Amino acid sequence: MSTIAFIGLGQMGAPMASNLLKQGHQLSVFDVNPLAVQALVDKGAKASATPSDAALDAEFVITMLPNGDLVRSVLFGDSGVCEGLSREALVIDMSTIHPLQTDTLIAGMRAKGFSMMDVPVGRTSDHAIAGTLLLLAGGTPQQVERATPVLMAMGNELIEAGGPGMGIRVKLINNYMSIALNALSAEATVLCEALGLSFDVALKVMSGTPAGKGHFTTSWPNKVLKGDLSPAFMIDLAHKDLGIALDVANLLHVPMPLGAASREVYNQARAAGRGREDWTAILEQVRASAGLNNQQC
Amino acid sequence: MSTIAFIGLGQMGAPMASNLLKQGHQLSVFDVNPLAVQALVDKGAKASATPSDAALDAEFVITMLPNGDLVRSVLFGDSGVCEGLSREALVIDMSTIHPLQTDTLIAGMRAKGFSMMDVPVGRTSDHAIAGTLLLLAGGTPQQVERATPVLMAMGNELIEAGGPGMGIRVKLINNYMSIALNALSAEATVLCEALGLSFDVALKVMSGTPAGKGHFTTSWPNKVLKGDLSPAFMIDLAHKDLGIALDVANLLHVPMPLGAASREVYNQARAAGRGREDWTAILEQVRASAGLNNQQC
Amino acid sequence: MSTIAFIGLGQMGAPMASNLLKQGHQLSVFDVNPLAVQALVDKGAKASATPSDAALDAEFVITMLPNGDLVRSVLFGDSGVCEGLSREALVIDMSTIHPLQTDTLIAGMRAKGFSMMDVPVGRTSDHAIAGTLLLLAGGTPQQVERATPVLMAMGNELIEAGGPGMGIRVKLINNYMSIALNALSAEATVLCEALGLSFDVALKVMSGTPAGKGHFTTSWPNKVLKGDLSPAFMIDLAHKDLGIALDVANLLHVPMPLGAASREVYNQARAAGRGREDWTAILEQVRASAGLNNQQC
Amino acid sequence: MSTIAFIGLGQMGAPMASNLLKQGHQLSVFDVNPLAVQALVDKGAKASATPSDAALDAEFVITMLPNGDLVRSVLFGDSGVCEGLSREALVIDMSTIHPLQTDTLIAGMRAKGFSMMDVPVGRTSDHAIAGTLLLLAGGTPQQVERATPVLMAMGNELIEAGGPGMGIRVKLINNYMSIALNALSAEATVLCEALGLSFDVALKVMSGTPAGKGHFTTSWPNKVLKGDLSPAFMIDLAHKDLGIALDVANLLHVPMPLGAASREVYNQARAAGRGREDWTAILEQVRASAGLNNQQC
Repeated sequence: MSTIAFIGLGQMGAPMASNLLKQGHQLSVFDVNPLAVQALVDKGAKASATPSDAALDAEFVITMLPNGDLVRSVLFGDSGVCEGLSREALVIDMSTIHPLQTDTLIAGMRAKGFSMMDVPVGRTSDHAIAGTLLLLAGGTPQQVERATPVLMAMGNELIEAGGPGMGIRVKLINNYMSIALNALSAEATVLCEALGLSFDVALKVMSGTPAGKGHFTTSWPNKVLKGDLSPAFMIDLAHKDLGIALDVANLLHVPMPLGAASREVYNQARAAGRGREDWTAILEQVRASAGLNNQQC
Repeated sequence: MSTIAFIGLGQMGAPMASNLLKQGHQLSVFDVNPLAVQALVDKGAKASATPSDAALDAEFVITMLPNGDLVRSVLFGDSGVCEGLSREALVIDMSTIHPLQTDTLIAGMRAKGFSMMDVPVGRTSDHAIAGTLLLLAGGTPQQVERATPVLMAMGNELIEAGGPGMGIRVKLINNYMSIALNALSAEATVLCEALGLSFDVALKVMSGTPAGKGHFTTSWPNKVLKGDLSPAFMIDLAHKDLGIALDVANLLHVPMPLGAASREVYNQARAAGRGREDWTAILEQVRASAGLNNQQC
Repeated sequence: MSTIAFIGLGQMGAPMASNLLKQGHQLSVFDVNPLAVQALVDKGAKASATPSDAALDAEFVITMLPNGDLVRSVLFGDSGVCEGLSREALVIDMSTIHPLQTDTLIAGMRAKGFSMMDVPVGRTSDHAIAGTLLLLAGGTPQQVERATPVLMAMGNELIEAGGPGMGIRVKLINNYMSIALNALSAEATVLCEALGLSFDVALKVMSGTPAGKGHFTTSWPNKVLKGDLSPAFMIDLAHKDLGIALDVANLLHVPMPLGAASREVYNQARAAGRGREDWTAILEQVRASAGLNNQQC
Repeated sequence: MSTIAFIGLGQMGAPMASNLLKQGHQLSVFDVNPLAVQALVDKGAKASATPSDAALDAEFVITMLPNGDLVRSVLFGDSGVCEGLSREALVIDMSTIHPLQTDTLIAGMRAKGFSMMDVPVGRTSDHAIAGTLLLLAGGTPQQVERATPVLMAMGNELIEAGGPGMGIRVKLINNYMSIALNALSAEATVLCEALGLSFDVALKVMSGTPAGKGHFTTSWPNKVLKGDLSPAFMIDLAHKDLGIALDVANLLHVPMPLGAASREVYNQARAAGRGREDWTAILEQVRASAGLNNQQC
């Protein structure tokens, strides 16, 4: 069992700390909210007056805070973690913050001789309570190996995301994709309603196609991800179908800003000479727009 | 076995007609391309000089044409299907055309006393050859029942989409969703590359979340589709995460027009007072933007 | 004075025809609405039973119709203009229709040996009544010279837009720019309100900058239009300022979809290596996106 | 003549400080770059070791820095302005920073008993050298009156933007409008080129319409700004024309993301029942999207 400093006892942090206690770890906790601290003390934790105090003698320091400025302040501020931390300890930031700030924080800790990794979590506060969070571990293999017994007290699935900073990166990508997809799904569903089509029928059809299953595991693996851009379904035709959908949506008064933006991406792909390539070549088109070199295509 | 007129022998139509012949149906075929006609004649079809001729004595007339103006012309033009068609026949348009034009064509046929349905197909030309197309049937139960034995010679899965015009509608929704999703997936993947994150890691994480599995069967059923907008994940937080992703993308020079458009949808949802509702409430937000009243769909 | 067939007596066409009568021209008129025809007959016009009848003996045929399909039908349909038209007559389409359809119609008329030009109008129905329309003339110099006396009965300013088809093109560009600019202006004004800033103050400042005066005659002539992309104001800084504006707008709940889209255009310009070029280089960026080679326009 | 602390001697700050010296003011200057300091010392300024030192005995403190974090640090940091400042002095921030950060800084200064205003500048570094900057003054009437003699040494036009914080707000609005308009102008111009239309002709037409003159002083004053939404040009028609422009642009491979976004704004206006209102009612539509109540602004 380990000696752990836990800083940040909010909606997620509190049950995570509780689960560490249940597994027999020794916890020193810190939060600006004394009620949150007391609740953990009642479960066996030790209250600390400052992050620095919490970090004294800790083998692990876990931070679970609302934003990156707070993590910075907790680590580097007055009476911050750095003032009490041993060079042998491992700092684990589990907050969801800006990835480039994570890089800065890890570099700052390294410059002072400290070891730090990022392990943001997936799923919800219910999973935090149940100890079944998804752990997205950004760290060296040694850091991950060392942290795993502690982390698995809070979650039931750990994905190694690569080196330090990669945990927060994969969380960002996942959230970007799911949040934007949510808005796109709403557009399709409202167009469905405006067309007088049963949503159940649409769902049945989409459940068998990339519309419902996504592209990553259906249309992409044997085409663009293999460098094969020969057309199974041409960009020209995809562009045409988008145009029909937008035309119908505009006739029926269904605003579709994501659809409108995507049509211009296909428009640009055609302008770049990709009209007769497979629709999955849109990945290469977006890569080119980002100034990445044209390897695949 | 049935007597069928088949009009439109292109990349999709030709193998579909062949499969009908293989099942023992009698075919009269028409196409502007004499080579396409001859290929079917070699397999046992009868060539017709005009759509009207093909329709004579036919129990079914199938059209598989590149656009709606051609379907209109084949049905209603000089020497068109209407001139030769029996009132007992069933016309099946399998083309992918503008849904509101489908409605007009079906209404025009009905006004002349003819029965017509729409059955566009899913999947690819390889499936057309194999006879394993997905059949999206828009018709009355009677029309669908009558057409099924003929249709199943060309496909292996038939989905009843609702009444006449619903087949083309569900195809439109499916294609809209999959084509726009393709562009969104490209944005997430290029941002992943620009962040130096392994795509395999991102894929592993997304395969367990709505990012990879879609929302229709994960986040929506127990929330917005049930009328429960209490937050499992708040719109305010989704909006914040999108903002971070766009900030990072703009720092790294990754253009994300769909992401940028989606952030403004969440922005508008917050302006409408939905910030503390569940992120799936974005469906209700888009419905309101479309002027639909706030009932559950 | 000339003999003129005038087809299409709607909100714009009726006063335009009246003004021709006032100038002493002889008019044969046609419209599907008998009341509209009678009103012109009361002012001295002759009613025609069909477009073909109207066109008989006419030196000029003017069409002013709601869309291109109607123009096509009036020209080429049964009892259409072509059936009565002299090879010496000049057809002037003043309707606002799709430019590529204008090209098709002019080519179709030319193939039959007829002369046709396009002269859509600017301004409002009040100007149509006053005879002070803006005339956007697409035609050969000979066509324009010949039509001018007739046209100037309806307007007070004529701009030669280039050859046939250019009148409708310049109308499209003008309308595109003014309509989209209207939405952009609304975003800036609502952000102004949300910031608690006086609109009069904003207006006073913008009236002295490209924000209010436009770029065509201010920032562009000495920079991108001359091929000088050295920075007076860098794309990097423009991109940064857009980011601040969008950040503020998202904090204040002001949706700005045009602003969000424009930020991604600058983002792409930076990805293309244009960050330190003058902001007017965004023109070259959009040209490149459209697949146009990098010459000055 | 006044005693002035000037902090920030970059591309803009250096010539502004020089102009203050030329007018006979006494300057204490500070910058992290010793060469920049020396250049001003050579012209008669006094070098200060810290912002605090510069502020000692100063009647005015002017900051001209690259971002808001630097302004905060210069004011409130160790050896910052606050440590040396007299309660009678006036702090003038002329930097271009985030407006909500300006508010925070001004409030922070006020809490310490200091007087601060914001006066960001318009125009270019050439104007800074010539002393002909545009001064956007955010301050109380008393602050503006007191600062004017000093400010007019650096510029030749001063616009009172309202109270503290309004200078930076009006700069933000102006820059937002001009930067996004730049991208929109590029779309229209590239579509012009793709259509084979002379840009000079387009310019000639647009110079007489809101496309070139803007809406603020043409279409808006007698319509939406007066509360008159009766249609001179209907939203329905504006939406239709945008649709034609986008259709042409997609046929000609001209990506127009701003145009596509604006079409969806008009689409939403129609969904909200505004189709038959004047096109200037798009302002009310955007206000409603932002959750502002439907008063005239």
